Amino acid sequence: MATQTKPVLHGYFRSSCSWRVRIAFALKGIEYDQVPVNLIKDGGQQRTQEYKTLNPMQQVPAVEIDGITLSQSLAVIQYLDETRPGARLLPADPKKRAHVRIISDIIASGIQPLQNLYVIQKIGAEKVQWSQHFIDRGFQALEPLLKQTAGKYCVGDEISMADICLVPQVYNAERFKVDMEQYPTIKRLNQTLLEIDAFKVSHPSNQPDTPADLRA
Amino acid sequence: MATQTKPVLHGYFRSSCSWRVRIAFALKGIEYDQVPVNLIKDGGQQRTQEYKTLNPMQQVPAVEIDGITLSQSLAVIQYLDETRPGARLLPADPKKRAHVRIISDIIASGIQPLQNLYVIQKIGAEKVQWSQHFIDRGFQALEPLLKQTAGKYCVGDEISMADICLVPQVYNAERFKVDMEQYPTIKRLNQTLLEIDAFKVSHPSNQPDTPADLRA
Repeated sequence: MATQTKPVLHGYFRSSCSWRVRIAFALKGIEYDQVPVNLIKDGGQQRTQEYKTLNPMQQVPAVEIDGITLSQSLAVIQYLDETRPGARLLPADPKKRAHVRIISDIIASGIQPLQNLYVIQKIGAEKVQWSQHFIDRGFQALEPLLKQTAGKYCVGDEISMADICLVPQVYNAERFKVDMEQYPTIKRLNQTLLEIDAFKVSHPSNQPDTPADLRA
Repeated sequence: MATQTKPVLHGYFRSSCSWRVRIAFALKGIEYDQVPVNLIKDGGQQRTQEYKTLNPMQQVPAVEIDGITLSQSLAVIQYLDETRPGARLLPADPKKRAHVRIISDIIASGIQPLQNLYVIQKIGAEKVQWSQHFIDRGFQALEPLLKQTAGKYCVGDEISMADICLVPQVYNAERFKVDMEQYPTIKRLNQTLLEIDAFKVSHPSNQPDTPADLRA
């Protein structure tokens, strides 16, 4: 019997988009191999010609799976959900799916792209205020939305792609010293989710490429 | 027999995210009402308390449909696809769906958020170079990807969400004077798509709130 090849995740321990994919793998119970791409060292290993063939945006993550190479974390997560058994990452109900995607996209299109490494390197000296501004702007929209949609998790009582996006974004917010007391719903959801195994094993403090001084 | 209430699109003629939703409505053959939200006038009508209840991100579009209010254009498009008959906006095959989502997300997360009105107002004097830089960066990634995935349209020979995202982004690129000759595949796809009725009727030059001097 041929052994099924394990998916390969090219990522970086502290990248929030890589963390999203790690959470999805963990929630689905899928074993995978990790190839670290150091975004800082040597001017950024994502800029090599070799990596560019995996992800032409020169960003992490890239995932080799089923004979193809995927990028863009939400595309990867939804591909896993549509091809793998186990816990659903999007609910069956179309209205709930829409709410999951709205929350995910506010983070993935409305917040993260504006405070990622590449952009804040371009912003320069003002990068902390810039990042705080865009995280606060997004969280001020998310807080009232989540008050309406949340149960135990972001949308009702089932873990979904929205939760997968939320926790890494809160981690970034904390790195940029955003005052989380303004967002009690986000804070509560994040605390609940961080207790779950799939969020713990995938945490940036706990990856093969996590530097020793940042290990949990 | 009760009349089904038509969906209401709150949008702006020149907003690329509003245009995406207009294309999706047109491809699905769904009649809808439009409520213009002028992003410039009165400091931006998207900033009113009334609009904020429709979309807490204070961006267009927002769509009232089936008793709920949706925002984030890709969430809206996928909701329409999952609840309405007619032309599929995402292919049935999971690998093709992943490619559609990768292309869509490169635009919706990797390009558009960095050159939208709110961000370039914050950038100030450098806004044209800033926008060109991020559009070029995204198109340099899209061009080789599309060379692999495209047939007549972005992914094979069926129109999809990827095409819905591509055309409005090329429109923005042209506004910012990006040299499209660098991207022959993108240029060819855009020209083909602009001949299709759903892309014509939804065009910014042809909306209820299009100013007279910008009308086709």
